[in-house]
Amino acid sequence: MRVTVSRKAHFNAAHRLYRKDWSMEKNDSVFGKCNNPNFHGHNYELIVSVTGEIDAETGYVIDVKILSDLIKEHIENSFDHKNLNVDVPDFTDLNPTAENIVVVIWNKLRPFIKKAMELEVVLYETPRNFVTYKGD
Amino acid sequence: MRVTVSRKAHFNAAHRLYRKDWSMEKNDSVFGKCNNPNFHGHNYELIVSVTGEIDAETGYVIDVKILSDLIKEHIENSFDHKNLNVDVPDFTDLNPTAENIVVVIWNKLRPFIKKAMELEVVLYETPRNFVTYKGD
Amino acid sequence: MRVTVSRKAHFNAAHRLYRKDWSMEKNDSVFGKCNNPNFHGHNYELIVSVTGEIDAETGYVIDVKILSDLIKEHIENSFDHKNLNVDVPDFTDLNPTAENIVVVIWNKLRPFIKKAMELEVVLYETPRNFVTYKGD
Amino acid sequence: MRVTVSRKAHFNAAHRLYRKDWSMEKNDSVFGKCNNPNFHGHNYELIVSVTGEIDAETGYVIDVKILSDLIKEHIENSFDHKNLNVDVPDFTDLNPTAENIVVVIWNKLRPFIKKAMELEVVLYETPRNFVTYKGD
Amino acid sequence: MRVTVSRKAHFNAAHRLYRKDWSMEKNDSVFGKCNNPNFHGHNYELIVSVTGEIDAETGYVIDVKILSDLIKEHIENSFDHKNLNVDVPDFTDLNPTAENIVVVIWNKLRPFIKKAMELEVVLYETPRNFVTYKGD
Amino acid sequence: MRVTVSRKAHFNAAHRLYRKDWSMEKNDSVFGKCNNPNFHGHNYELIVSVTGEIDAETGYVIDVKILSDLIKEHIENSFDHKNLNVDVPDFTDLNPTAENIVVVIWNKLRPFIKKAMELEVVLYETPRNFVTYKGD
Repeated sequence: MRVTVSRKAHFNAAHRLYRKDWSMEKNDSVFGKCNNPNFHGHNYELIVSVTGEIDAETGYVIDVKILSDLIKEHIENSFDHKNLNVDVPDFTDLNPTAENIVVVIWNKLRPFIKKAMELEVVLYETPRNFVTYKGD
Repeated sequence: MRVTVSRKAHFNAAHRLYRKDWSMEKNDSVFGKCNNPNFHGHNYELIVSVTGEIDAETGYVIDVKILSDLIKEHIENSFDHKNLNVDVPDFTDLNPTAENIVVVIWNKLRPFIKKAMELEVVLYETPRNFVTYKGD
Repeated sequence: MRVTVSRKAHFNAAHRLYRKDWSMEKNDSVFGKCNNPNFHGHNYELIVSVTGEIDAETGYVIDVKILSDLIKEHIENSFDHKNLNVDVPDFTDLNPTAENIVVVIWNKLRPFIKKAMELEVVLYETPRNFVTYKGD
Repeated sequence: MRVTVSRKAHFNAAHRLYRKDWSMEKNDSVFGKCNNPNFHGHNYELIVSVTGEIDAETGYVIDVKILSDLIKEHIENSFDHKNLNVDVPDFTDLNPTAENIVVVIWNKLRPFIKKAMELEVVLYETPRNFVTYKGD
Repeated sequence: MRVTVSRKAHFNAAHRLYRKDWSMEKNDSVFGKCNNPNFHGHNYELIVSVTGEIDAETGYVIDVKILSDLIKEHIENSFDHKNLNVDVPDFTDLNPTAENIVVVIWNKLRPFIKKAMELEVVLYETPRNFVTYKGD
Repeated sequence: MRVTVSRKAHFNAAHRLYRKDWSMEKNDSVFGKCNNPNFHGHNYELIVSVTGEIDAETGYVIDVKILSDLIKEHIENSFDHKNLNVDVPDFTDLNPTAENIVVVIWNKLRPFIKKAMELEVVLYETPRNFVTYKGD
């Protein structure tokens, strides 16, 4: 019996969408107001889902406390109240679009989830825009 | 790296569930109070999701502004503040159940999404009832 | 100890904003797309709040089951799956704006709430637009 | 055209996570504060989704009223305002974790959904923790 | 400039509505299924609001971190994952209706909020039922 | 009949909480991680409420389209996708705490609301923290 266990979390961060190797004009034409050189920001909401067999002894697929602590240690501690472009090394040379952020988060969490389990991450950049990544 | 990008939108509309070729009694027995000849209505909430590869240059699967404009042009402009049965030609001979509406919306948007990308539409008729269509 | 007890409810309805004694042009200029002669509709969400003393015996200000039944009998039964302009006599000569609807609802419920208690009604026409009435 | 129809429902219940065959110490170390012998409780929110072909006659996959009645009869009537460990026989010898509850609910509903249709159940234990089961 | 600062929090608890000095029949007739002797439970959501002058130095009315810690120390630590009737002394002789709980919470927090400030507590027993207390 | 009309809006922005005339140490001790010199950010959600008499002719207190346009012109255009500290002159010498932001917003909107009407602004900095200002 494979069940999916999902946990919501959140972090607040500043970011700017642009490429260093493009002119300001080109960045403006592609990223519009998201290219503000002084940054803007979001309350990112996160849903991390792990799918696996129910452990017959405990009745858990994964203890949601463990899942919550993993998110806190590996994502919230690095991303919360940070400037993604400046403070988070993963985005030094990677444009912090929602798509790229969700892949970075998935890659950070994957090593801590058992191989037999599947991992999916949903990231809300705003209440109206969100992205989903399940790995390859 | 295939990522799903989702955008929420909404429109307000009136509708009535019934078949012209059925008697009032039969329509009442199947569609109940949804068969009010004077119509009732909903705030339809829409989640449109596009799945594809991240463009390495921009970091986008699809610019959410483009997705939002597509929804506005092809769905909101035709459906918002309308009577689905009377004002929207797609429902002249098609009962505007949530199931039929979500398929109509998917078919209207599909030509504007690249072939290599997948499209899914979720339609909330009320906060408690919703439908999902991913194509065939 | 005066405490406020609030109950959420909902009804789905069609309506049209216009005045019979105005021309179509004037109605269009004031009510815009809300003046669609074929109607549009909403999922109206309602929050009914009653403020009074806690009854020392029961620990209730008002049994929320009683409040819920009052809303069902006097509001939902008359408004749900209806066309407000056509099916609800209160709006035969009253434009069913959110402001007018919330006052009508308040007046319908007030006789059933004890005189020593205060009544407030909040009406969401959409998740983004709502109105509040507390009586005079 | 396969479409998914989803319906939200809810029930309020008390429960305790523990195994009778484990010591209090072991139960505490695995289930933490969820092992309170006096129980704690939740507002469980439920999303039941049925996927199937649209019936060409009615435009329905399944009448949401029928789906809603099935949930009421088979889930809400047995679980709402109950102590899952004490009042619900399914959990006499089964730890009422969210994972086990969602499988029990799926198994209770499955016989009433046509074989050609798929069933998925999502169960929110809190607004931040939820589980999903689609059968085997 | 008086501004209100609000903070959301939550706790999960079991409870039963009844009076020890009433018969089972009378308790059933007044409290219905809330009188289950084996208890039921809720995810209580809490909004604590403090109104006062903005401190010209900090720009804060109250540091939301301090408000959050007060709620954690005085409410969540005593109520979360507890049986209100059995584990919380305040309800030994007080029926834990939402109305009585919100007054107890207000009384527990009031001593820690400056006298010049106003305190309001909103308590959601379910997403559809909530109560509000502002003191006397 | 005085009714309150409320409209939700939103803007995304970066900010930093600190005083230029304080040392980094003092700023850290008072504002904690909100004092990140590289900024962080939020999806600010706004509820603007206007209370007044219903106009007997239109049935409106204020056309919600007019209210929505006022918020767009005077708040969203200046604040959305901006760095509040750097891009918004109001905060050059004013710490952009939620309390100060909500007062600034209220002051910007007040001149455009008729004198006989009351104005209230609620500002969500996160889904869990919000502030309310009604003027003096």
